[in-house]
Amino acid sequence: MRPTGAGELITDTLDVVHDRFSASEGGELASYIPELATADPGLFGIAVASVTGNVYVSGDADVPFTIQSLSKPFVFALALRDLGLEEVLVRVGAEPSGEGFSSIRLEPGTGRPPNPMVNAGAIVTTSLVDAPDEAARFERIRAELGAFAGRELDVDERVYASEAATGDRNRAIAYLMHGAGSLQADVEGTLGTYFRQCSVLVTARDLAVMAATLANGGVNPVTGVEVVEEHVAERVLAVMATCGMYDYAGEWLLRAGLPAKSGVSGGLVCAGVGQFGLGLFSPPLDARGNSVRSVAAAQEISRRFDLHLMHRPDRDVSALYRSTRVDRLRQLAHRTPGQRRRLRDLGSAISVRAVQGSVEFAAAESILRSVDELPSPLPDGECWLILDLSRASRVISLGAQLLGGLVERLQSQRVHVVVVDPFERGLVTGVEHRTTTFEDAQRWCEDQLLATA
Amino acid sequence: MRPTGAGELITDTLDVVHDRFSASEGGELASYIPELATADPGLFGIAVASVTGNVYVSGDADVPFTIQSLSKPFVFALALRDLGLEEVLVRVGAEPSGEGFSSIRLEPGTGRPPNPMVNAGAIVTTSLVDAPDEAARFERIRAELGAFAGRELDVDERVYASEAATGDRNRAIAYLMHGAGSLQADVEGTLGTYFRQCSVLVTARDLAVMAATLANGGVNPVTGVEVVEEHVAERVLAVMATCGMYDYAGEWLLRAGLPAKSGVSGGLVCAGVGQFGLGLFSPPLDARGNSVRSVAAAQEISRRFDLHLMHRPDRDVSALYRSTRVDRLRQLAHRTPGQRRRLRDLGSAISVRAVQGSVEFAAAESILRSVDELPSPLPDGECWLILDLSRASRVISLGAQLLGGLVERLQSQRVHVVVVDPFERGLVTGVEHRTTTFEDAQRWCEDQLLATA
Amino acid sequence: MRPTGAGELITDTLDVVHDRFSASEGGELASYIPELATADPGLFGIAVASVTGNVYVSGDADVPFTIQSLSKPFVFALALRDLGLEEVLVRVGAEPSGEGFSSIRLEPGTGRPPNPMVNAGAIVTTSLVDAPDEAARFERIRAELGAFAGRELDVDERVYASEAATGDRNRAIAYLMHGAGSLQADVEGTLGTYFRQCSVLVTARDLAVMAATLANGGVNPVTGVEVVEEHVAERVLAVMATCGMYDYAGEWLLRAGLPAKSGVSGGLVCAGVGQFGLGLFSPPLDARGNSVRSVAAAQEISRRFDLHLMHRPDRDVSALYRSTRVDRLRQLAHRTPGQRRRLRDLGSAISVRAVQGSVEFAAAESILRSVDELPSPLPDGECWLILDLSRASRVISLGAQLLGGLVERLQSQRVHVVVVDPFERGLVTGVEHRTTTFEDAQRWCEDQLLATA
Amino acid sequence: MRPTGAGELITDTLDVVHDRFSASEGGELASYIPELATADPGLFGIAVASVTGNVYVSGDADVPFTIQSLSKPFVFALALRDLGLEEVLVRVGAEPSGEGFSSIRLEPGTGRPPNPMVNAGAIVTTSLVDAPDEAARFERIRAELGAFAGRELDVDERVYASEAATGDRNRAIAYLMHGAGSLQADVEGTLGTYFRQCSVLVTARDLAVMAATLANGGVNPVTGVEVVEEHVAERVLAVMATCGMYDYAGEWLLRAGLPAKSGVSGGLVCAGVGQFGLGLFSPPLDARGNSVRSVAAAQEISRRFDLHLMHRPDRDVSALYRSTRVDRLRQLAHRTPGQRRRLRDLGSAISVRAVQGSVEFAAAESILRSVDELPSPLPDGECWLILDLSRASRVISLGAQLLGGLVERLQSQRVHVVVVDPFERGLVTGVEHRTTTFEDAQRWCEDQLLATA
Repeated sequence: MRPTGAGELITDTLDVVHDRFSASEGGELASYIPELATADPGLFGIAVASVTGNVYVSGDADVPFTIQSLSKPFVFALALRDLGLEEVLVRVGAEPSGEGFSSIRLEPGTGRPPNPMVNAGAIVTTSLVDAPDEAARFERIRAELGAFAGRELDVDERVYASEAATGDRNRAIAYLMHGAGSLQADVEGTLGTYFRQCSVLVTARDLAVMAATLANGGVNPVTGVEVVEEHVAERVLAVMATCGMYDYAGEWLLRAGLPAKSGVSGGLVCAGVGQFGLGLFSPPLDARGNSVRSVAAAQEISRRFDLHLMHRPDRDVSALYRSTRVDRLRQLAHRTPGQRRRLRDLGSAISVRAVQGSVEFAAAESILRSVDELPSPLPDGECWLILDLSRASRVISLGAQLLGGLVERLQSQRVHVVVVDPFERGLVTGVEHRTTTFEDAQRWCEDQLLATA
Repeated sequence: MRPTGAGELITDTLDVVHDRFSASEGGELASYIPELATADPGLFGIAVASVTGNVYVSGDADVPFTIQSLSKPFVFALALRDLGLEEVLVRVGAEPSGEGFSSIRLEPGTGRPPNPMVNAGAIVTTSLVDAPDEAARFERIRAELGAFAGRELDVDERVYASEAATGDRNRAIAYLMHGAGSLQADVEGTLGTYFRQCSVLVTARDLAVMAATLANGGVNPVTGVEVVEEHVAERVLAVMATCGMYDYAGEWLLRAGLPAKSGVSGGLVCAGVGQFGLGLFSPPLDARGNSVRSVAAAQEISRRFDLHLMHRPDRDVSALYRSTRVDRLRQLAHRTPGQRRRLRDLGSAISVRAVQGSVEFAAAESILRSVDELPSPLPDGECWLILDLSRASRVISLGAQLLGGLVERLQSQRVHVVVVDPFERGLVTGVEHRTTTFEDAQRWCEDQLLATA
Repeated sequence: MRPTGAGELITDTLDVVHDRFSASEGGELASYIPELATADPGLFGIAVASVTGNVYVSGDADVPFTIQSLSKPFVFALALRDLGLEEVLVRVGAEPSGEGFSSIRLEPGTGRPPNPMVNAGAIVTTSLVDAPDEAARFERIRAELGAFAGRELDVDERVYASEAATGDRNRAIAYLMHGAGSLQADVEGTLGTYFRQCSVLVTARDLAVMAATLANGGVNPVTGVEVVEEHVAERVLAVMATCGMYDYAGEWLLRAGLPAKSGVSGGLVCAGVGQFGLGLFSPPLDARGNSVRSVAAAQEISRRFDLHLMHRPDRDVSALYRSTRVDRLRQLAHRTPGQRRRLRDLGSAISVRAVQGSVEFAAAESILRSVDELPSPLPDGECWLILDLSRASRVISLGAQLLGGLVERLQSQRVHVVVVDPFERGLVTGVEHRTTTFEDAQRWCEDQLLATA
Repeated sequence: MRPTGAGELITDTLDVVHDRFSASEGGELASYIPELATADPGLFGIAVASVTGNVYVSGDADVPFTIQSLSKPFVFALALRDLGLEEVLVRVGAEPSGEGFSSIRLEPGTGRPPNPMVNAGAIVTTSLVDAPDEAARFERIRAELGAFAGRELDVDERVYASEAATGDRNRAIAYLMHGAGSLQADVEGTLGTYFRQCSVLVTARDLAVMAATLANGGVNPVTGVEVVEEHVAERVLAVMATCGMYDYAGEWLLRAGLPAKSGVSGGLVCAGVGQFGLGLFSPPLDARGNSVRSVAAAQEISRRFDLHLMHRPDRDVSALYRSTRVDRLRQLAHRTPGQRRRLRDLGSAISVRAVQGSVEFAAAESILRSVDELPSPLPDGECWLILDLSRASRVISLGAQLLGGLVERLQSQRVHVVVVDPFERGLVTGVEHRTTTFEDAQRWCEDQLLATA
């Protein structure tokens, strides 16, 4: 065996982006937590974790820093897991506020903070994590963050002390919400847990894995552990998409097209749904509190890799393709002359639809329309349809639902449906016969046809 | 040929949803434009347009109503086409404001309205459409809306007159922006065009096609006309995702997971990127100005069809699959005994990677890693790699880029790459040899191998 | 007769203040109306008009400039005259808003502008002036402003044109209020009148007389014309006290202690209730839109002359003073020896209370308490009280009311009350006898006493 | 001596007002401090304290309740005393905010609370009271409130505990200000003192005396103690005038015309500058947090007694009056025939100006103008002016200043000024001769005239 270095191609791309932005000098260190102002402004790390479980890094991707606001989506996930969406929404909204991370605007009437990605909302979600006491609550949070990252995480006690000592605005927000009823837990206890949660130490590599876990439907692709259920991961990503970047959320989604969350320590996480997680780290911040280099690098990566959420995937091939070629001569060798004649005369009673690629709405719809009429040379209209899914890479719920409905409808009309699925995935329900090869399907249909009067 | 009615399966699903919500009685008719208060509150239409160009409808999908705010994303598209993103962003932001459709909040300093989906921003985008005069400007807008819908659209002159006569708040917003410098065109002229634009008549069916045009990368799937470039369509969808539903935008994306836009006449458009457009219509509005039935029905359709933007597609099969089976006996029949022996001894110099489904980041990454080491029995390490893309349904930019990089790197290491692509799509650049069947690729590699010393 | 120049003493004081601030260079010319930016920044005029009708000036007190916001209190007065307070308050509030002159904040629910001193409120009050059409409305306003100033006033047509052409924000405000229902008149017509009203030309001398008219209870002290009723003048001053200086109103009242109103052309009016009006003019403005020199000079004048509204007047003398000396010998010469003896024995039945200065609450209260017990040597308790008001400079309503109540109560107790009032002002009601000299009062009481059994 | 009950006339008036409003049933008990919700809604007390030191009461004027926000002006006075105005204004503004008592709006840039009458500002002023520790700070505050009230005041510990336990919003405000830098003291310590300050027990009678102390220039009229300096009292009243009634401040000053402060326990204080203090108490509050009955009763009292700050005092008599009559015959009896002849020929060299009432700006100005020319029969222009102030009740600073300037100017022109002041008040400076009677003045002038060549 000889090495080719093919696996380094992704790392090479990250290095190019890292080089491009590492020299940029804009931004200021966070000052609102004194300890953060001591960070090295030159640090810059990028990491990508694939849903396949591989991680690629460039620069200072293994330098630990406090997680700060990057903890918010993951603790929100925990609260969703504990209480469910509707219960959580009673206490915290899901609307972008058009304001910064430390906004004190609460919803008139309900007193709800606007969303779980600003401090106000994050304090509430922290308080919603189920635990007998604050120590246990924090341990659950630390364990959850660790499960997302795939390793046990520590706390930076100096940053915690600094944050607890100077967190006037967060205290103010918490008391406002307690007064308004949206925060029902003990204020000081909740704040202690919140400040500690913000002081958990992570690296860009950790962030990439954490984001990849969300991108992978809640399953950590490195450890294989299901950290949260798929619907929780989806909801967290949806809220990140509209609220994760504070008052830059809209332009961020416009430019980068990826659900993301930034933190005042200079970190940034982004998720490519079903694909990867991205973790970046560079302390200098812009006026909105987002890391200057991290934002620029993430947008460049999104642009280079064409990852925009609104990018319409190019379908190179149609969902339907010509019927799979079968060695007809060899097949017919097994038939009697009478059978061969009958197959030649009535063979059109056997239709084939071969499907390739993903079967989403549009593909499923093409299939449906392609069988809107079927040849039926037999007097009673009986006929056969081979649905060849051997090249169908995946069938989303809608496709499965529509194909299931199709099969049911056809069977009731004496159309016998046979599915070819070499991977035996059981993609479509209610089917009369299944095979793993097209040859077998064809033979079965022919046998059936010959068996008719 | 016998009809099966398979094509009606989608319509059936729409009917189920229509029935479920048609009886719901909440909401009030819009009152801020007097003429709208005369609408029939019982009207309810649903339409879906596939990117394949088919349209499915249920209920009152062909009843005309004024487009109102639903015109905003499409006129925004026109402004983007005329000026480009950066120039447009100088005049109008892209941030959700956390406020309602008639918010008067402008960005401090710049005076920019928050985004093009609220009235303020829409008035600015209308003014940005390039034209010699207001009449021409409106004709361009009407033509553009018609191109999105696939038919010529008319204006409801009574609603226009009603709106022009009572549009105090819009006048106020326009003068505020003119004073702040974000609206530079003539105020009354711009408002006239804007009110007329809002009075264009559409149906739920039209809306579905318009949304499908955005979902289809800017190409109207019914007429085949490219209305806007793909990157324009993407940007419009991104802004719809964060700002389209006003102060319900965040919760909407959380629940429905689709870029959308609502209008005060009771319409709603949603887009499933690369899949379909959805158009709904039912006049009674909730307190935020969104159509009660349209919102409920769209969320139900999203839920039923599993269309949430953050839903991780289930990959049923891995990107790589076992090497395509070839009739080796038949192939070897053409070889001399010496050649057969050599092929048996050194055959491992020919590697095969067969790819199926979409080749996005994760798939491309799997391929890269699978060739991180290659067998090389030849003394000088020369070897061959067959990249079988015959089952690859599509290759996104990132995949193409990574595979191109892979090929380049391998060629430089004396690895000869052969691509099998039955559809001759030219997916990967810089390849040494291409074939349309795997047999041909294998034969070519074997010929090359035999030709070595 | 020889001139002493005593009358110039007030002018001298104004000159001192003028000199002190004329060299100060801060501030910027108003830019929001282009024509105002052409003003001479060096102009500086001060004028004081006494309620006695004299006017004292220093510097450029006769240079005409457009009245702008200084028109607001006077047009508010006109609206109060036409509609009465309660009706006006339905359309415009009386609360300081904490915001600048062009604030767009309207009261939630009612849509009322916060007060008539900001543009929004002033536009409404202009619309409330009763007239058959806009031309007549403006003529009434021009006539009213002229009546306050004591001369006919002209319009600066260039400023009017400049303002009408660039008044985007005022247009915006007006449309907002029309939409909200607080402005019910035609928007463009009202704005035309409002812009024209703002373009009326005045001088610092005019402003002083206008303010003096308010200070003088609505009567122009120069012309003697009652421009508005006293209660209207009081209400205008009260609103000026809390709202006249926009977002500097509170600190202004704290420092200057005078109801005031500033204008963007550099003018300032202040009123010393019952004393004088002050008019200043100097174009350069501070960040809040108040004239830098005018504000400083007005505060200095208030400080020098100790005019602060909250300044407790030093009462040098008590309200009560020793009984007026009468030439008793000459009076007794008219009496018989028996009468003289009776007067000596029972003379204490005649009590005297001599009042000096103002009879407000505290003075009236002192009088009341001083008669809480009266000597009554007569067996049936009959006695006499001489209330000597010859030195009472004025008796406010409360004093009159309390003294009237006192008289009524005393009369019912056989205490005969005689009032001495050399000016025959009829100050106290229900009195048994009145005289113009103390001697007459004493004689009358003695006659009565002697007439008793 | 027989009692007349004259002193009860004021009490009678209060009783009438009390009766009129005691049956009104609107308003709700304060709920934001639980303990306040237990108050008896039927309680209603009114008290008036005159600057002469008498107190008149009606209803429940001796029922103790917690002072709450009514403490704010008095603690503001203490802060002004400790730090001076400019230093205090660095930390807290003086602008009405247009918002309610618990507004969280801070001044952008400085973080200052808008004014010391809302909770935010009051917390800051509490923190500014100079003391070595919080216990001492509270004792100073309690002592100060007691000095204003004229008796030692206690704390309601239950209300304190209730307030401390539920004061979320005040905690929030305090932390916001601490974060913004406007509150620099320890947050929890300051809040403890603030809550305790709010829990001091007072009665309506106390409030009347406290307000009368402000009205009386800082001197408690009952105890005679100078609690604060006069300029401090003036400033407190000025801030009460614009900010004391929260978002009702403007309309309050318009309607009641008195500086005032309300509190959530149902109390209200008003001050009539130089006249009286008014204290009211009735627990049910309107939506703005002002006591329903207290507000109505105070407005009625202001209306009945004509106490509006903007009310122009009716001047019944002019400032100048005819020269005091003197018994000329008796005077001339002392002169020789030659002297009599000379006095007859040149007597016009002696001018007289007799002044009555207050000598404010307008009166002083009348005097000045009346001596703008003087008769001067003597060849060298020498002449005499008798300024008879025997009926001048008071001379405000401006009057004294102008008269002083007048005297100086006249003396330099050989006009000898003699002041008649029976009370020997030394009102005017620089005078050549002073007498206590007009006769003496006349004789002195005649002696001087006769002494000339």
